[in-house]
Amino acid sequence: MSKPYVYFFGNSNAEGDPARKDILGGKGSGLAEMTKLSIPVPPGFTISTEVCSYFYEHNNHYPEGLEKEVLTKLSFVEEVLGTKFGDIKNPLLVSVRSGARISMPGMMDTILNLGLNDKTIEGLIAQTQKERFAYDSYRRFIQMYSNVVLDIDIHKFEALLSAKKKKAKVTQDVELNAQALKELVGEYKQLVKKTTGKEFPQDPFEQLWGAIGAVFHSWNSPRAITYRKIHHIPSQWGTAVNVQAMVFGNLGDDSATGVAFTRDPSTGDKEVFGEYLLNAQGEDVVAGIRTPSPLLGDAPSSHSLEKTMPKACKELCDFFERLEKHYKDMQDVEFTIQKGKVWILQTRRGKRSAKAAVRIAFDMVQEKMISQEEAILRIEPAQLEQLLHPMIDPEAPKEVIAKGLAASPGAVSGEVVFSPETAEKWVEGGHKVILVRAETSAEDIHGMHVASGILTARGGMTSHAAVVARGMGKCCIVGCHDIQIDSEHKYMMVNDKKVHAGDLITINGTTGEVYLGVIPTVQPKLDQYYEKLMTWVDEVRSIRVRANADTPHDAKVARQFGAEGIGLCRTEHMFFDPERIDVMREMILADTEETRRTALSKLLPMQKQDFMGIFKEMKGYPVTIRLLDPPLHEFLPQTSKDLAELAHKINVSFSKIKQKAKGLSEFNPMLGFRGCRLGVAYPEIYEMQVQAIMEAACEMVQKEKMDLIPEIMIPIVGDVKEFDLIKERVVKICKEVLEKYKLHIDYKVGTMIELPRAALTADQIAKSAEFFSFGTNDLTQTTFGISRDDSGHFLPKYIETGIYDVDPFVSIDQKGVGRLIEMAVELGRKTTPDLKIGICGEHGGDPSSVEFCYRTKLNYVSCSPYRVPVARLAAAQAVLKK
Amino acid sequence: MSKPYVYFFGNSNAEGDPARKDILGGKGSGLAEMTKLSIPVPPGFTISTEVCSYFYEHNNHYPEGLEKEVLTKLSFVEEVLGTKFGDIKNPLLVSVRSGARISMPGMMDTILNLGLNDKTIEGLIAQTQKERFAYDSYRRFIQMYSNVVLDIDIHKFEALLSAKKKKAKVTQDVELNAQALKELVGEYKQLVKKTTGKEFPQDPFEQLWGAIGAVFHSWNSPRAITYRKIHHIPSQWGTAVNVQAMVFGNLGDDSATGVAFTRDPSTGDKEVFGEYLLNAQGEDVVAGIRTPSPLLGDAPSSHSLEKTMPKACKELCDFFERLEKHYKDMQDVEFTIQKGKVWILQTRRGKRSAKAAVRIAFDMVQEKMISQEEAILRIEPAQLEQLLHPMIDPEAPKEVIAKGLAASPGAVSGEVVFSPETAEKWVEGGHKVILVRAETSAEDIHGMHVASGILTARGGMTSHAAVVARGMGKCCIVGCHDIQIDSEHKYMMVNDKKVHAGDLITINGTTGEVYLGVIPTVQPKLDQYYEKLMTWVDEVRSIRVRANADTPHDAKVARQFGAEGIGLCRTEHMFFDPERIDVMREMILADTEETRRTALSKLLPMQKQDFMGIFKEMKGYPVTIRLLDPPLHEFLPQTSKDLAELAHKINVSFSKIKQKAKGLSEFNPMLGFRGCRLGVAYPEIYEMQVQAIMEAACEMVQKEKMDLIPEIMIPIVGDVKEFDLIKERVVKICKEVLEKYKLHIDYKVGTMIELPRAALTADQIAKSAEFFSFGTNDLTQTTFGISRDDSGHFLPKYIETGIYDVDPFVSIDQKGVGRLIEMAVELGRKTTPDLKIGICGEHGGDPSSVEFCYRTKLNYVSCSPYRVPVARLAAAQAVLKK
Repeated sequence: MSKPYVYFFGNSNAEGDPARKDILGGKGSGLAEMTKLSIPVPPGFTISTEVCSYFYEHNNHYPEGLEKEVLTKLSFVEEVLGTKFGDIKNPLLVSVRSGARISMPGMMDTILNLGLNDKTIEGLIAQTQKERFAYDSYRRFIQMYSNVVLDIDIHKFEALLSAKKKKAKVTQDVELNAQALKELVGEYKQLVKKTTGKEFPQDPFEQLWGAIGAVFHSWNSPRAITYRKIHHIPSQWGTAVNVQAMVFGNLGDDSATGVAFTRDPSTGDKEVFGEYLLNAQGEDVVAGIRTPSPLLGDAPSSHSLEKTMPKACKELCDFFERLEKHYKDMQDVEFTIQKGKVWILQTRRGKRSAKAAVRIAFDMVQEKMISQEEAILRIEPAQLEQLLHPMIDPEAPKEVIAKGLAASPGAVSGEVVFSPETAEKWVEGGHKVILVRAETSAEDIHGMHVASGILTARGGMTSHAAVVARGMGKCCIVGCHDIQIDSEHKYMMVNDKKVHAGDLITINGTTGEVYLGVIPTVQPKLDQYYEKLMTWVDEVRSIRVRANADTPHDAKVARQFGAEGIGLCRTEHMFFDPERIDVMREMILADTEETRRTALSKLLPMQKQDFMGIFKEMKGYPVTIRLLDPPLHEFLPQTSKDLAELAHKINVSFSKIKQKAKGLSEFNPMLGFRGCRLGVAYPEIYEMQVQAIMEAACEMVQKEKMDLIPEIMIPIVGDVKEFDLIKERVVKICKEVLEKYKLHIDYKVGTMIELPRAALTADQIAKSAEFFSFGTNDLTQTTFGISRDDSGHFLPKYIETGIYDVDPFVSIDQKGVGRLIEMAVELGRKTTPDLKIGICGEHGGDPSSVEFCYRTKLNYVSCSPYRVPVARLAAAQAVLKK
Repeated sequence: MSKPYVYFFGNSNAEGDPARKDILGGKGSGLAEMTKLSIPVPPGFTISTEVCSYFYEHNNHYPEGLEKEVLTKLSFVEEVLGTKFGDIKNPLLVSVRSGARISMPGMMDTILNLGLNDKTIEGLIAQTQKERFAYDSYRRFIQMYSNVVLDIDIHKFEALLSAKKKKAKVTQDVELNAQALKELVGEYKQLVKKTTGKEFPQDPFEQLWGAIGAVFHSWNSPRAITYRKIHHIPSQWGTAVNVQAMVFGNLGDDSATGVAFTRDPSTGDKEVFGEYLLNAQGEDVVAGIRTPSPLLGDAPSSHSLEKTMPKACKELCDFFERLEKHYKDMQDVEFTIQKGKVWILQTRRGKRSAKAAVRIAFDMVQEKMISQEEAILRIEPAQLEQLLHPMIDPEAPKEVIAKGLAASPGAVSGEVVFSPETAEKWVEGGHKVILVRAETSAEDIHGMHVASGILTARGGMTSHAAVVARGMGKCCIVGCHDIQIDSEHKYMMVNDKKVHAGDLITINGTTGEVYLGVIPTVQPKLDQYYEKLMTWVDEVRSIRVRANADTPHDAKVARQFGAEGIGLCRTEHMFFDPERIDVMREMILADTEETRRTALSKLLPMQKQDFMGIFKEMKGYPVTIRLLDPPLHEFLPQTSKDLAELAHKINVSFSKIKQKAKGLSEFNPMLGFRGCRLGVAYPEIYEMQVQAIMEAACEMVQKEKMDLIPEIMIPIVGDVKEFDLIKERVVKICKEVLEKYKLHIDYKVGTMIELPRAALTADQIAKSAEFFSFGTNDLTQTTFGISRDDSGHFLPKYIETGIYDVDPFVSIDQKGVGRLIEMAVELGRKTTPDLKIGICGEHGGDPSSVEFCYRTKLNYVSCSPYRVPVARLAAAQAVLKK
């Protein structure tokens, strides 16, 4: 690493290159950029991310010379402002903030008012003539610093504050007078001494280095690690530290602080969306403790900034426009107005809902700000999914029990939980939960991550809960004042209703409404912006997108989302239908081929009906049907009681059923008697299925005069001879059916590639198989030697400790499983150059996996219907990124 | 395929090239060779194996022109002998025999006397002046032909024969006179007409083509298919058909027939070992119906050929010497003496016991017949194993209940079964069985294959049972006249003792003794020939051979068999010891790291003791110790009752134990929480094990002043980061222990490669791992997606139907698993060119797998102690074959 370690900004000049976010971090880059754009930014300097990396690589030591550089740059700040750090007459106060390459709410955010001590406070009082303000700043500083740097529980300070308010017989912080605050400062300092055994540091430089160290340390806090894990941020990136002169939004009613999005982050509407608090510091807005007022609005009752400080408001809006034009993207801006003067403290790419992302991208193309390709790259594919999920059925009867701010759209039902820990535990136990909190903070991230939805009692549209939930694409309502939470006794009062932990509620993040119980949902109507954007997407992408769908209903949804065929139709789910399962069981318990065939002949018309329905919905798009895959014992009842019932129902002795069930049970069913191994042992099962498929196809061709491409897929193939044996029978049945109907239908017989051996011998298998489809779930399980069902004991820890970069069941493990896929593609196409190859594991809807599939030259990906648009977008982005 | 289809031999001249066994088959090649050597062979011709392939490829049709060729070659035979096929005055009679490239007892063997009919028999009578002989030949022909070609149950003929003897009041076939046999011929022909609706064929050419067709059909009989499967003979090889003029060993007391080995097939002694029957046809010897006399021997009581026909015997022995010199190997020869003239009917490489194989190879080197290298290649590695298995403890008290011929050496105990079907069923159920039969035939092969040993009441040393058992390397006693079997009531009388099916007996194939119950065994003393041969072997081979050994005892045995280290020491078996298992369970059930450590500290001294014992036995050879591998639930009791007992014993509540056991249970334990995943979750377990290993090593170095190379092996690694995490801790513990003892010991930390992902990312793993060891059992399971424990439902069928050429759990699947091994070696050595790589799966002792490992440039193979010599030999052969 080379110097400089520290980059000054101020006076329309910045040492750092704003393009180097890797050095300056996101916040530092924005400050440098804005300074260069002559937007009023308090001067300061950025300690580069490289120092952070150095710090961790050298056992928490700073590089030689850092201290000197910091002092030099600090003197530049002093020069601009004519103040001096630690000066008792006109002291320079600074904020210290972390700033990683990507905004990370999991990290230390801010220490304000740094530089205050028992002496400099006198200077601050002298300069501002506001004693109350000065002591309030000092006590806030002690509180923040002690918490963040000295690691003292914040509640201890809150308790002293509460006691002080009680003593003064007031309820609000602002009601405390200067004397009380001065006393509080003394009590705070005593608390520090009692807890740490040392005085609260009075030396501003000691304070400064303490804060800088705390920022670096916060990079590896559990919260930050969790956040990085969720968002796949490499730990070696490190954070920068921004030290910046303080400006004050709390110097009176001519001062204010706020945050704003340059467009509506929820809808994408092209209008500034912001909130502010009069006479407050920035942290008050973000924390959501006071509910802020909107920036714009001229209604008589409005407390908008537009009305209270029209000039500042206009100036602010001009800055927003300049910033947006400069960055060509919607910005999330923090500002402070100090005695009427507007300061911009931060600008960054604004987080937005999927709906807003689409709308903004579309609008910016219209505004000629960005190209269609850029618009496509602007949408995060995973986020798109939230657009597509069900919304509350407008026809359904429902009672609104509460209403808050619609912070992140969608509609979900789940059991109420009041702590992130409970959320995690219940979700692990298979429940869907709604996390209900007074407000959220970074400590809640892990709970928010697992919850289906989030509901908070306090906070605005830019509060922590709102911002994080939108980022996660999670349904969220904030500022729902109708609820009062008693988290100790695990219930909440919703107006006069008592809702306990575990009770079911439904939240509507699109409207902000809360309902009791589970309210049915319907498919959302996708707006014109989405439709238009997806036509651009489809023009760009080259890889096809199909859906995994087992029923005509799924097939229909898949078509609505733009699926170009079915990549995986699992036939076994069809057997779990209550009226079919007993016939299936009869088949399984049969002793002879003959009795097995009798049972199968009852299943034939049912399967045929299923396939007709699916063919009909798919209107000529290819449909890949996988023959029976799971081991037969999965279809049998699990308990003795249920087995006895079954024995009675199908008139077989209990002991026989029990013996048969025992005979079928397996030590490792994943690696057992399943897939084509069943097909080899009991040819009649696959014969029935193939007959059902082909008869369904023939009848659709006859009745509906439609084109059809049935693709019959053999699972768990490990050797070409295995495939050949089954293919021969499949072809025989197909021929017989086609002859019976006197029809010609093109059909294909192909295979899953879901075992390492299939991938390794793909050149052989391609001699017979007419298509490949990667079953990446099983391929991941066998390649890693991990049973997904049993991985709970160790996989979370593996991801947490970074042994695995990503969960290999979510995103294709490109080094291992991906290598096998590449080999199989290469070997298969060596035999058959135009071999059709797809993927139908859950990875098919994962954006980075889609990109991998594109690079590996697959013909299509197949995923769950709701992820089809995600995959389409990811596929287009893959092309553009290349 | 090109002509000729048929190859004549006779008159010291042969059309076929004896080297082309692929065309002539083994028997045909031998006949051509012997004819060329001017050894007296009845003239005849061989229809090539290519005709057989053509026959199967063309829907059972012969190639155009075959018939004409057969007639031409038949006329050559007639010319040599001056007889004519079908001639009523001087008819040519022929034998028709199958003859594949490799001798296959599973196939049709012989039809004799073909060409006889109601008219030609008159010519035979006129020529031989022996009416009884002629009718006996005719009735034998009808019986054989009807059975083999017309598929009529042989027992129907036997019944008529029995009735005839009863009527004539005689007990032996030979006592029936000409008239009775003539009548029997009439009855046989009626039986044929009644059963088939057609007359027995009188046209000799119809007979000939019928027999030829039957030979070709017999190639695909179930028996033949089973045999091919066991011996890995490709089905496309096909069989030849040998048609040869008849000579008669049953023309009176100047005629005889027999078989001989040019050296003793059981001990390898250099002396002719043969048996003959006076006045008999060849089939009588092989079938073992009459007990034959020895060829040599001049004791006064002896009925040896040496005494009864000294001239013929000497002539025969001269031929044997010439044949052995020519083939440079021990021969198995069939001969017939017709009225004093010796004819050789067949010669082939003689099957021999392992002991004999070693001795013969050694002697032939001394005799300068073959080189040392050839001697090495002469021993089948798999066969060697039988030399090494335990023999009856000479000190053990035992009662001999019966004695037979020591047909195949070794000693085994097992439950008595009387049918091959029962043998299969019981063995599937986990039993060890001894198959007891009056005599065996090809139908018994499947039962012999699964039995631990074979005992027959009848037959000689060259009977079917003896030959097949020796080939299989199975302990076998034949001709045990002391036993009388009642297979219907499932018991046998052994002199006056009744032994039921399921009773335990022990058989000693080295002495021919049968004992009741289980007799203890001891390690055999290996003879000087073996020791010498193995020194040649070790000079040739380049790949090292280690053993898998978990105890000092195993280590000792391994060293005795020449193991050059331990390739796999499984530490978990040490925990199953009754006095340790409860401590282990205490550890597993512990709630905290602290209580876990307390239990582990009790296990530490025990493990340390184990390792000290093993190091001591291995005297400085490397010892690879694998850290704990199986999932923890394997150590817990399985039933509620046992759990309750455990709860009581270790003073923990039952409900807690039950809950813990449930928490640990898994859907697919093979792919679950095991191997290094345990090490990541509970570092203290591996820490204890590493401490035990290193402390044991240090104490051995201190006390015994020995060199030591402990190799610590991490199981189930799938990612280098996983390995790194554990290696770091291992190294830390090792350092601490070495510092404590103030010693320097070289140790290595390496990894199993047993998951596809480990193989695929071997270049990464090799950055940290100091050695690789392929765990081919798990690698096969994951690559195939087959749980070996659950494969019983389909794997046998897969092997039977040829979907898998070989059982991949026995011999490395070179196309799939082997490909991964090759990749891992290549990638690993790309990172570390001199990386030490071995294999420690069960495949390490499989000869073809050893050859694969040699080609793949592994440093060593490791296998069970008893297979160490097998692996050494296979390793040397691999070098020589290259």
